[in-house]
Amino acid sequence: MKILQVDFPSPGPFGAEMSAALRELAESIAQEPGLIWKLWTENAETKEAGGIYCFEDLDSLNAYKDMHSARLTDMGVTNLRFKIFDVNVALSKIDRFPGL
Amino acid sequence: MKILQVDFPSPGPFGAEMSAALRELAESIAQEPGLIWKLWTENAETKEAGGIYCFEDLDSLNAYKDMHSARLTDMGVTNLRFKIFDVNVALSKIDRFPGL
Repeated sequence: MKILQVDFPSPGPFGAEMSAALRELAESIAQEPGLIWKLWTENAETKEAGGIYCFEDLDSLNAYKDMHSARLTDMGVTNLRFKIFDVNVALSKIDRFPGL
Repeated sequence: MKILQVDFPSPGPFGAEMSAALRELAESIAQEPGLIWKLWTENAETKEAGGIYCFEDLDSLNAYKDMHSARLTDMGVTNLRFKIFDVNVALSKIDRFPGL
């Protein structure tokens, strides 16, 4: 398991409007090779959005990261911030992370 | 649900050594008021670590954030980065985030 942490400034939409506008994007992300899950994050006050992705391996993560970076840039997003992490499974289990 | 995203430079330990060294800290975090779960993140190559926390509400998140920020600073951590997010539940469900 490899984690891709993404965040960036966003003018919106947020909340229910975001859910409606990005449903098809979420459905396409669900089909990405190697994706286990994505947590969608948003902050309407600070005007930021992002995601925490879990991929099966680093190759599938990097392939998605390159494609998604280009897609977000095409959508006008700037100041994209990516971080790649491993999961510490033993500690995450102690702290009740679901699905481990 | 409120998400607290934390990351910072770390000299380690990582992996199994991190699991052993921070087990008691993880057990204490599991008792924090309002904590639903924490995902522990680490990167031995870039020498970074962090966590994705889910709290019941913003008050419990902010109380933890203030305490944890002081604790990490006492441990010598600098360049701490915190971000607070809501979860877009509808989109996260489409992308199989566990436990929703």
